[in-house]
Amino acid sequence: MPSDLDNLRVVLVAARNPLNIGAAARAMSNFGVRRLRVVNPYEVAFQEARSAVGAAELLAKAEQFEDVAEAVADCRLVVGTTAAGRRELQHRLQRLDQGGREILRQLKTGPVALLFGSERFGLSNEEMSHCHWMMRIPTREEHGSMNLGQAVAVCLYELVRGRKTAPAKTAPGKKEKTSVASSEVERLTQAMLGVLHDSGYVKPQAMAAEEKLRRLVRRMELNADDAAVWLGMLRQIAWKLGANAKNEK
Amino acid sequence: MPSDLDNLRVVLVAARNPLNIGAAARAMSNFGVRRLRVVNPYEVAFQEARSAVGAAELLAKAEQFEDVAEAVADCRLVVGTTAAGRRELQHRLQRLDQGGREILRQLKTGPVALLFGSERFGLSNEEMSHCHWMMRIPTREEHGSMNLGQAVAVCLYELVRGRKTAPAKTAPGKKEKTSVASSEVERLTQAMLGVLHDSGYVKPQAMAAEEKLRRLVRRMELNADDAAVWLGMLRQIAWKLGANAKNEK
Repeated sequence: MPSDLDNLRVVLVAARNPLNIGAAARAMSNFGVRRLRVVNPYEVAFQEARSAVGAAELLAKAEQFEDVAEAVADCRLVVGTTAAGRRELQHRLQRLDQGGREILRQLKTGPVALLFGSERFGLSNEEMSHCHWMMRIPTREEHGSMNLGQAVAVCLYELVRGRKTAPAKTAPGKKEKTSVASSEVERLTQAMLGVLHDSGYVKPQAMAAEEKLRRLVRRMELNADDAAVWLGMLRQIAWKLGANAKNEK
Repeated sequence: MPSDLDNLRVVLVAARNPLNIGAAARAMSNFGVRRLRVVNPYEVAFQEARSAVGAAELLAKAEQFEDVAEAVADCRLVVGTTAAGRRELQHRLQRLDQGGREILRQLKTGPVALLFGSERFGLSNEEMSHCHWMMRIPTREEHGSMNLGQAVAVCLYELVRGRKTAPAKTAPGKKEKTSVASSEVERLTQAMLGVLHDSGYVKPQAMAAEEKLRRLVRRMELNADDAAVWLGMLRQIAWKLGANAKNEK
């Protein structure tokens, strides 16, 4: 039976422990989520994990990517997970039950990525910058960091629970926005970055600026039409900047 | 800060894998639950588990018991966990979110035990017979059996979530029953069993009968006063049976 959960992609970023990858896959199988993506895993761990109890098929079909951008390219919503108070977040932070409801709504219209960071460090700032917002499991401040497999289980439980107990509905009269794929948002980000570089607003190779910008663009939560308009404007500006540079030479 | 969750005892019955015991302890630490009890664990596993990440103190304080009756003796509510559709249950079965609300209410008045069975077999019928009711995590029927550490994490998350989002209240005008400790219920069960043996209703060594009886008594959900009355009646009957037996000789 196809369900909204088929639109969910669980993305494990830089996972190191085969037991954790296996445990994540098992929880997915338990809760009926099938699409696992791994970004840059420790290769041996990924191979070993393929023997996870009761989730062999799921792991065999797992897709492997070299970076987060590629792994979430087809997703219209990208949500990162984080431990409590781990660092100053630059993102909107939602509690798991609130965030879960928003994810359930989005799953009705298209693919959503749910990102989990590495066991030791969680998601890096660069990795987080691909997210629209962050979600946190209500753990204690004194010991917030969860085991990876357990974090996946808890998040998926919340989605399954939420779907059963409170079917997500759009309020009557309110039309769901058509959101835009991450690949489009990233194209927009790169176009904007190019323009800002060319205009001297940001220095070349300034990673921090790129991350800030990526977050800025995602916070806009653009719909597809608006994203296209933005991209058109930026391309025009980029073209103009390039033309001016040529003229200056 | 003391909280209702201090009244919760997580009871792992016959756990075999040190990683799972450690993972259960870690989830407890994440969600602020401190009392771990292990019944009849594989001894080596229990020793190894004591090195669980970030939960060493909790594991060092874990209490060890030889059987379920002893482990839940001080608890006024005993709830077992089970996978979906694993077998015909003789207990009332609640979904995790419903059961969680009931547990939260009981935690306000006294100790509650939450039982998890062994990795391979779950809780046996004998072990389940100590439970008032069973709770199930909404996993898929085709792959219901969860990893032990993940099951613990999901159940504790539900309790923490429920406490935050919907504070459990007794309806106005409805007085919370003073429930009775499991040790009392077990004493009552044994008294009843003695009487039924002596009266020839059940054959000696009939385990199935004992389990049925245990469930029967727990379904009564007695308050302390009623339990005392019951025990008094049974003792009287037992004395009478004994006296008659002597007279017959």
